[in-house]
Amino acid sequence: MNASAAISELVIANRIIAHLRLVDSFGHVTVRNPENPARFFMSRARAPGLVTKEDILEFNLDSTPIDLRGLRPYSERFIHGCLYKSRPDVMAICHNHAHELLPLAVTKTVMRPALHSAAVIGHEVPVWDIRDRFGDTNMLVTTNEMGDSLASTVGKGKAALMRGHGSVIVGKTVQDAVFTTFYLRLNAEVLIKAKSMGETITYLSPGEIDRSGELHTQPDAQGRAWEDWCSQAGVAKPSRK
Amino acid sequence: MNASAAISELVIANRIIAHLRLVDSFGHVTVRNPENPARFFMSRARAPGLVTKEDILEFNLDSTPIDLRGLRPYSERFIHGCLYKSRPDVMAICHNHAHELLPLAVTKTVMRPALHSAAVIGHEVPVWDIRDRFGDTNMLVTTNEMGDSLASTVGKGKAALMRGHGSVIVGKTVQDAVFTTFYLRLNAEVLIKAKSMGETITYLSPGEIDRSGELHTQPDAQGRAWEDWCSQAGVAKPSRK
Amino acid sequence: MNASAAISELVIANRIIAHLRLVDSFGHVTVRNPENPARFFMSRARAPGLVTKEDILEFNLDSTPIDLRGLRPYSERFIHGCLYKSRPDVMAICHNHAHELLPLAVTKTVMRPALHSAAVIGHEVPVWDIRDRFGDTNMLVTTNEMGDSLASTVGKGKAALMRGHGSVIVGKTVQDAVFTTFYLRLNAEVLIKAKSMGETITYLSPGEIDRSGELHTQPDAQGRAWEDWCSQAGVAKPSRK
Amino acid sequence: MNASAAISELVIANRIIAHLRLVDSFGHVTVRNPENPARFFMSRARAPGLVTKEDILEFNLDSTPIDLRGLRPYSERFIHGCLYKSRPDVMAICHNHAHELLPLAVTKTVMRPALHSAAVIGHEVPVWDIRDRFGDTNMLVTTNEMGDSLASTVGKGKAALMRGHGSVIVGKTVQDAVFTTFYLRLNAEVLIKAKSMGETITYLSPGEIDRSGELHTQPDAQGRAWEDWCSQAGVAKPSRK
Repeated sequence: MNASAAISELVIANRIIAHLRLVDSFGHVTVRNPENPARFFMSRARAPGLVTKEDILEFNLDSTPIDLRGLRPYSERFIHGCLYKSRPDVMAICHNHAHELLPLAVTKTVMRPALHSAAVIGHEVPVWDIRDRFGDTNMLVTTNEMGDSLASTVGKGKAALMRGHGSVIVGKTVQDAVFTTFYLRLNAEVLIKAKSMGETITYLSPGEIDRSGELHTQPDAQGRAWEDWCSQAGVAKPSRK
Repeated sequence: MNASAAISELVIANRIIAHLRLVDSFGHVTVRNPENPARFFMSRARAPGLVTKEDILEFNLDSTPIDLRGLRPYSERFIHGCLYKSRPDVMAICHNHAHELLPLAVTKTVMRPALHSAAVIGHEVPVWDIRDRFGDTNMLVTTNEMGDSLASTVGKGKAALMRGHGSVIVGKTVQDAVFTTFYLRLNAEVLIKAKSMGETITYLSPGEIDRSGELHTQPDAQGRAWEDWCSQAGVAKPSRK
Repeated sequence: MNASAAISELVIANRIIAHLRLVDSFGHVTVRNPENPARFFMSRARAPGLVTKEDILEFNLDSTPIDLRGLRPYSERFIHGCLYKSRPDVMAICHNHAHELLPLAVTKTVMRPALHSAAVIGHEVPVWDIRDRFGDTNMLVTTNEMGDSLASTVGKGKAALMRGHGSVIVGKTVQDAVFTTFYLRLNAEVLIKAKSMGETITYLSPGEIDRSGELHTQPDAQGRAWEDWCSQAGVAKPSRK
Repeated sequence: MNASAAISELVIANRIIAHLRLVDSFGHVTVRNPENPARFFMSRARAPGLVTKEDILEFNLDSTPIDLRGLRPYSERFIHGCLYKSRPDVMAICHNHAHELLPLAVTKTVMRPALHSAAVIGHEVPVWDIRDRFGDTNMLVTTNEMGDSLASTVGKGKAALMRGHGSVIVGKTVQDAVFTTFYLRLNAEVLIKAKSMGETITYLSPGEIDRSGELHTQPDAQGRAWEDWCSQAGVAKPSRK
């Protein structure tokens, strides 16, 4: 995949995450430049549902823009730059405030997968609390120091909840990042309802997480969802591989 | 902004709050006349989703109409008049019965923000109970005495819950009032689910509320949502500033 | 209003209750014949969202059809006939399984209004359990004896929950029956969430129920919702009065 | 009904379960070949909302394909083959991860019907845990041994929950399988909310389950829903019988 194809897929991903309500007017998805791993693509500051090719900007891994073309960047681009820097295996990232997962993001409870399709979130999703290290802030990740702290909480994992704010998810591809975001939210919804009943929850075992997680990161599984979401969101499906 | 532009924006706001289901067939949003701060604009009594320019009426701050043109006003216009009177800084107001926040409006629990985007609701959202001062009523705010009582509960704040009824939100602009209404509802939804799980909720700290609240009342943040909502509701976005 | 206008309104009501998801593929709304109070109109057995004028049949108050025209009637028409018989003041009835109220219909808890707009449901909504008098049945109200029993539980009230089944609502007009159904469901949703939080609920006082109930059964209030719902459901609003 | 009509109905069923969100991008519905009970029809591996006639493949009851035509089959086809093998009375099967029922699928609680229309799920819906017999897996039913184990848990019943995964439902017809899936989900939703309130639930009695279950498996009841769902999903209703 070249840079141009990556940008096209990024635009589609923006439409999909808006259509699936994984984001509201805020949140963002990015992709590493496949032609230059020291850079990544991200829309200008705009609601994801409205993003077009003309909105895409390029950034260095310290989140400085290559050429703003007079547009305004997202102030939280540091989330992305710092994660691309710390995780060479990561090719795409989604930051969101999906409404249904927020009830878990206002607690300090580590999330674990209880659904086979949610095995893609990994063994544990930690909660990053910006206040722990940075005290009272406006809650946004607006410096490399903050981004590095968040990246350190994500560690080698797939995601982190951000206390009082939302979540961040990393992926091997744009499709992987969106897929993981979708099933992270579903896992949250299911846990919230199950906990409300007060019944004992059976989580996936470590072995199940590994095996089901591997299965659900295959292009076969993720491509099936992607084709469906492209159709639902009314966007053309890019030819895969 | 002149009176005519304010009316145009008010019509758009009506469509948006209906589209976002912040109101059902009841509820209303108003704007202070930018050319005459002693008056405000409000639709005739009609479901917000159906409001057009022709439905807009003008009122004095004691909620008497300037010219009804044979139309019927909302009986709860006193909510608006009294708040514009007590709060010269307020330029727009939204009164609603958003379904998702009502579970908190049937308790006496003061709401506090647990989400960064909900910092716009301020440090605390008090509950106004019409019964405390007026005894058994039909629950509507239909006199200046009732409106003044509600305004006094809102005080210098951003919003109040109305027991067994809904909520009222004030804003520096129409966009601010709608934005705050949206995230007040989201905060309520999230708290209701988090409380149902029985887990400990981490609320924003006072410093976080101040800083994140200031951030989220900037035209940059609110304009991003407004552009998105205009698109979703199928209405033309007015040129901003 | 003559019989023909009543039938037109009944068709619209079917579309509206389907659009608002007050019914799924089952449930029904009826109207008493304004030209002959000893008869009522009801669709043939069909999903409400599909009902047209050609589907409307007429029944006596013992729920025998006047002329089936080869069509199959709903087996639960006895709910309607028995209530029209016992309640000369009732002009329209809605029987539904609105999904959101069902969690209360599987308990024995009497419902009380906690919202001002739900005052239209009256002071208490009792639960009718078909098993109490008829033992093990298929749960449907398929005889006049069963219908009389249900009518006796409704008494002089506005509605009853039907254990394991749904609810029935009576109205002074078709609009009143649909309006009351809508706010009965909302009241149920709100109570279910409020109870899940474990917080103390403040219900309307008896005086508030009377005053707010009277207000919300006025054509002004109900007509505002009806105009909105006609627009949402894409049906022509009949000229009122 | 011949094989061609069965395939047409299967395509419609795929559209309906996608429209009703009984499935997301995963899950599948199948039908036994009415001309050869030792075979069944199933789509190639694809999101149900996108399935067309050209996607339908035929399988033996050991889930080997008759002719793949270069297409990729669902890896979980063994769920279907094994159930058709063990249950000659079953003509259609739906496997799904309906989001709303998943909170019950992460507990070990047997589900019982509390709603009259949910009597079609039978007296009890057991929970099958793949881990009990197969240890750590990727959670998919990908062998005949696993399929037989699941079929044995279903026994002579109508459905089983699959721990951490979803559910499987068998039917006498395609319409029966979809209808039962719809009301299994609704029953789950209602129980989850009722349990969250902490109130005592009144379940259907065994006699009510038998009688209401028989009623709701009649073509009259199921056909009313089917006509409605075809209309909602925008697909032509096939002539019945």
